[in-house]
This record gives sequence, C-alpha cells and structure tokens, in this order.
Amino acid sequence: MAFINDNFLKLKAGYLFPEIGRRVKAFQQTNPNAKVIRMGIGDVTEPLPPAIVQAMHRALDEMGARETFRGYGPEQGYDFLREAIVKNDFAARGCDVAADEVFVSDGSKSDCGNILDILGDNNTIAVTDPVYPVYVDTNVMFGHTGTPDERGEYSGLIYLRGNAENNFTPDLPRQRADIIYLCSPNNPTGTVITKKRLSEWVEYAKKNDSIILFDAAYEAYIQDGGPGDSIPHSIYEIDGARDVAMEFRSFSKTAGFTGVRAAFTVVPKSLTAKAKDGSRVDLHRLWFRRHTTRNNGISYIQQRGCEAVYSDEGKRQVRDLVKFYLTNAQIIRERLQKLDMQVFGGTHAPYVWVKTPTGTSSWQFFDRLLNDCHVVCTPGSGFGISGEGYIRLSAFNSRENVEEATRRIERTLKL
Amino acid sequence: MAFINDNFLKLKAGYLFPEIGRRVKAFQQTNPNAKVIRMGIGDVTEPLPPAIVQAMHRALDEMGARETFRGYGPEQGYDFLREAIVKNDFAARGCDVAADEVFVSDGSKSDCGNILDILGDNNTIAVTDPVYPVYVDTNVMFGHTGTPDERGEYSGLIYLRGNAENNFTPDLPRQRADIIYLCSPNNPTGTVITKKRLSEWVEYAKKNDSIILFDAAYEAYIQDGGPGDSIPHSIYEIDGARDVAMEFRSFSKTAGFTGVRAAFTVVPKSLTAKAKDGSRVDLHRLWFRRHTTRNNGISYIQQRGCEAVYSDEGKRQVRDLVKFYLTNAQIIRERLQKLDMQVFGGTHAPYVWVKTPTGTSSWQFFDRLLNDCHVVCTPGSGFGISGEGYIRLSAFNSRENVEEATRRIERTLKL
Repeated sequence: MAFINDNFLKLKAGYLFPEIGRRVKAFQQTNPNAKVIRMGIGDVTEPLPPAIVQAMHRALDEMGARETFRGYGPEQGYDFLREAIVKNDFAARGCDVAADEVFVSDGSKSDCGNILDILGDNNTIAVTDPVYPVYVDTNVMFGHTGTPDERGEYSGLIYLRGNAENNFTPDLPRQRADIIYLCSPNNPTGTVITKKRLSEWVEYAKKNDSIILFDAAYEAYIQDGGPGDSIPHSIYEIDGARDVAMEFRSFSKTAGFTGVRAAFTVVPKSLTAKAKDGSRVDLHRLWFRRHTTRNNGISYIQQRGCEAVYSDEGKRQVRDLVKFYLTNAQIIRERLQKLDMQVFGGTHAPYVWVKTPTGTSSWQFFDRLLNDCHVVCTPGSGFGISGEGYIRLSAFNSRENVEEATRRIERTLKL
Repeated sequence: MAFINDNFLKLKAGYLFPEIGRRVKAFQQTNPNAKVIRMGIGDVTEPLPPAIVQAMHRALDEMGARETFRGYGPEQGYDFLREAIVKNDFAARGCDVAADEVFVSDGSKSDCGNILDILGDNNTIAVTDPVYPVYVDTNVMFGHTGTPDERGEYSGLIYLRGNAENNFTPDLPRQRADIIYLCSPNNPTGTVITKKRLSEWVEYAKKNDSIILFDAAYEAYIQDGGPGDSIPHSIYEIDGARDVAMEFRSFSKTAGFTGVRAAFTVVPKSLTAKAKDGSRVDLHRLWFRRHTTRNNGISYIQQRGCEAVYSDEGKRQVRDLVKFYLTNAQIIRERLQKLDMQVFGGTHAPYVWVKTPTGTSSWQFFDRLLNDCHVVCTPGSGFGISGEGYIRLSAFNSRENVEEATRRIERTLKL
C-alpha cells in the first residue's frame, strides 16, 4: 500500500498567483476591451541582451558539430562559469569565495527548496513576514511545520515581523533560530538590509550556531555610491559570514533569464552543522553529493550565456537593463509619493511596496486598481499577515506601460 | 544549533564513477601515450541533430527580440511540447495519456529523486539488482533505508535479483513492495521487459496497491517489428497501468540531449496513494504542487529543441542517431560473442552487459581492459552485488573508436 507525503496536505489551497489570475480573467471577460497592464508577477519583459544571445548562438553551433559537441557537463557547472562568477561577483568586492564553492543551477527557486534536502528535520526555522512564499511552502512540504492557523501562519515557524516602523527589515529574534531566511534586496518589499544590520545577523548566527540562507537574487539592483555603499551585495562582505551563511544568486532578474533559467548557490567549505551525534559536518560536502546525485546541471548553452554576462559588453548591456527597470521603479515611486501614498523599496530593487489607503485591505485595493485602472498588482497579504494593507508593484514592464499605469492610478486616486 | 540530514552520512563513500576516474587517471599518468577509449559512462558523442539545432537557434532569436521574448513559462512545460509528446510518444502507440499529465523537466535523474518528495517515508521500496545507483542513493538520502551492510546493500530495501538465468529481468517479489523501480530497456544490463512480464507487474501493483516508477529513458532503442513488438515502449501500453504507474522519459539518449537537458514524467490523474488517515490522494495534484512550488521549468529554447524531435525531419535524424549507436552495440555484441563471451543487452539498448572470464571479478576485468586494451568499461559490481562478474560497455562512441576498441579486446582475449 503506497503512501503519500502527508505534509503536502497541510499546504494552504489558495495560492496567491492563481487567485490573481482568476480575478484578472473574470475582469477581462466582463471588460474585453480594457487594456490590462500587469504589474503583479515579477517577470522581466525586455529581450535578452545581444552579447548573451550571441554567446548562446555560438555555444549552440558547437553542440551541432562533432568536434565541439559536449555531453554531460560537471553537475556543479563548468569551471569557465564558476571562475567568472567568483572573479566578478565576489573577488571584485573583496569577498573570499572559491570557484568550487559555487554551484550552478537552474534557478534560485529550486535551490531554496533543495537546500532543505541536506538539512535536518529538527531545526527551528525563521522567516521574515512578509515573505517570499517558497521559503515557507518548501518547509511545509518537508514536515518542518504544523498546520496553518486561521490567519494562514504555520505552527513551528518563527515569523520575524516587518512593518513601516522597522522599514520592513525585521529585528533579530529573541529566541534561538537554527535556520534563518534573509532576502535583500527584498522580495516583496524592495527594502534592503544594511551592512550594519547584516553584521548583527552574522553575529547572531555565530552565537547561536545558526545558518543564514541569504537570498541575493536582486543584488544587481543595489545602487552603489553614496549611501548605497552601506548596502552589501553579498553576505560574504561581512566578516565571519563564511562560517554561517549560504548565498543564493540568480541570473533571472539581472540578465533577463526568467525564461532561460540559470542561478547559483554559494556553499563555503567552512560552513558546518551538527549531526545527531553532535559531530560537525561540512555542508559543502553534503551539497556536492546532493548536486551530483540528483541532477546533471544546466546546459552548456545556458552556461555560455551566463559567462557572457561577465564580458565587457555583457556587463554594459546588463547594467543598462537593470537601469531601465530601476527607472521604471523610480517613476512608480515618485508618482505615488506625489499622491501622498507611503511607498517602500523601488530604489535598490525592482519592486515598489505601497501602503493602501486607510481602511482598505490588500485585496480591496487590488480590486480597485484592477477595476478602475485596469492595473494588476500583487496584494501584500499574499506574502504574509504583515503584508496586509500593502500591495507590491513590479517595475518589470515597458516604459510605456509604466507611464500609462501610473497615469491611470493618478487619475483614479486623485478623484 | 543547525542540524544536517543525517541520512547523507549513510551513503557509501566510494561512488562508482569517481573510482573509475581515479584508475583511468593513474593509468594515463604512467602511460601518457596510450590512446584510451572510454566506453564506461553512458554519454552521447554525436552532435545534436540539425533540425533541433535550427529550432533552438530560432527560439534563441525570439528571446533576443522584444516582440517575441518570453519570460517565465509554465513550470510543467509549454503546451506545444506537452501536446507533441502525447501525440507522438503515447497516442501513436494507443496509450491514453493527456497533455496535462506530462511534466517537462531538466532530466530523468532529477525526476527519479524528486518524485520521492511527494511519497511517504513509510513505503517499502523495491529495486532491481543490478540497479541504476540513483534509485538507491536518493532513497538513502530520504531516510528510507538503514546503513549499508558489508556488501554495500542497505537494510530496508527489497533487492530483486537479476542474473543470467532470468536474463536480468528479476522475478516478482513474494513480499509486498509499495514502490517498485523498473527500468526497461535496462541501465545497466541492456535487457528489456516483455509485455507479458510488465502485465504481471501491473497486476502485482494492483493487487498490492503499489506504485511502479517506470524508467523508460532508453525506449527509443527498442527495435520494433518481429519479436520487438512484444516489448512495450511505455508502461501505458499495459491495461490498467494508469492506475498504478508513473513513467520517466528523457531526451538525453534519444536526441543527444545529455548536455542540453530535457526530460519528462507522466503522472496520470487516475494514480492515487494513501494518506496516513487512509484516504486516497491524487498524486497528480501533489506532483503539480511540487513542480510549481519548487522549480520554474526548463527554458523556452530547450523546449523548442524538444519539439523539433517530433518534426518529420527531427524524427528521421533522431532515428538515424539511435540506429548509429545501435549498430555500435551490435558490433560490440557480435565481436564479443565470437570470442565466446556471454553478452546481454545491446539489441534494444545502447548498453552491452558482458560476463567476465571465469574467476575474474568485475574490477579485475576492468583493470585488464584498461591496462591491456586501453579501454574503459564500467564494472558491473558498481551497480550492485548481482553485477559482480560482469562489466557494462557503452555503445555511445564514434564508429572508429568502437571498431578499434573491439579489435584491441579481440587481440588481448585471444592470447
């Protein structure tokens, strides 16, 4: 008699994005002529930069010729890519990361869940609230939580509350947490963790023998120079982080790879955790074993595309792409601020986190934007109870759509 | 205090392919001029078929232009591909599989491990012996086994013994197994399961409320016509299989995708298993949730490449590719048989499974082939205790290398 993993049955049924899809579809059916502008899901809209496309064409041609064809690559990624990553993303910022500590993968979403394979079932998990739902849902699937309460929160998790007062960068917990998810620049709030605060987290982790899972998928959006210099791109900019942190990076929002798929995770060789018998075990070795046993890496073609992100031309093109989306974010921020709305994020991140008008819930404001402005946002409450009373607007869109959407919002909210 | 998943510590340290690599490297260091021919690992050598390369170039150009750019695709794969799969791989053989029962992924290796995410920890698992090591190692990681005994077998698993007498297609177990891994055409033995035997397995699964995980990664190598017609390409050719089986397929060995990465898994909507409270749960729904929560699918470019496998031109080119490798297998088979060696497989599979000379262990014969013939094989004992006294030769190579390797073996073994 075959059995299922019962933990799946604890997952809340109504996932955020399907519900958004349902409401948008219903609206479109009754308003077939409305030009709906989607600023909900964080998906890039601009084409792949030419340097990347060219590199991938070349790699594809190599795969079509006998002399240059490549079969299975190293599961952790080709050295040419791991070395380019280390040189540009870490060494250039003074971070001590070795090429063989970089594990190339198909996406940060995969890595964030897969990492739980090598961690024990007896860890206390802390997440921020609002939170990227994947952190929570994967822990539910692994049986690290109980069932959700009436507000949708799972017993067994520590929720670190973000709010306007702490600029959505939650305080350190008073109790002990073994595994802590941090995301900066943050999805969904677009806020960032300063070097000072991140140092406090690293201290906390050292003191409590905890591990920080640092999600830096949006690091390319950090504006350096001036006050930006106090915002770390990598947790390895903090002394001692190599002993307590893994880092997740992605090419999705940087180089427009949401439809190409490529990411990487850094697991320092100095990072350890305990076995049940109290001995310390090297997590790099476990992750290596997990990686080589359970997947065969991503294609040579994708990896040459990633490598091109670090060429001179690629860097320039990717910088322009990021700047384009950040200008969108700035437009959104400024126009909403002119309407006296309270906004967070959008400076070092492609997301603008907006306080709804007093007395209006996230979903009520979602409906108002959809019905009155034909603009789709993401209700903040979908990211956790601290997201109630907020919405997330994504800056991933054409300039034309961003201009038009903000004009419509101005018109409606000024009424 | 963060804890690891202790199950990883049960894994045997000496994995097969690193040990092969070590011995080959040592040989090459002392024999720098020897031209070593690698027939160990099952990796394709011929370039991607032109129809596939062209389709991928076109898709890549689409990704480089604003009007045709695509970001996140559906996690389970684009409809164009799922529909092409169903039409060509299933409907064409009279199998009842719907497009939304097909889940596109980056590889069968991933799927074989990931499927355990949705299954319970309380299932009795049966594997064949010899076995594709990933089935065993992933179950160890999930805590479904005890520690290995002195022969390297894990307590808690049912091993179904293959041997020369049963043509390496093991008998059905007398005890109850909840989850059964079957692989046909088989890796490593190259043998196949007949329709009659597979029907018995489906009957067994129905009677015992078990689930069969059917790995058909090598189905393209089945020679139809004549006796081949009694060999099923898909388990869904068997009546009732929709209620008891999932199927894993891959583009790796079919279209030469080991370096491109693409595969799919079929989870029929009629397939259920039990929750702890005894209620029956639809596995399609759980796998869908797993798929959408834990990954973002494979790239649009890869998927257009897969689609081209099913075009008229693609079909012809892929058929030629498979035929090329099968001719290699035939050459290996025939030459070894002329030397009075006992061989299995190689007719409906790219692997030839060879009995070592009397009194010679797998590793001894491996060393002899390496030292005397400069040919790398895979020792059968690396696939389980029933593999002792056998080696696996892979037909994935150039014709020239296959001719040369078999000539060298003839010369050595005739002495």
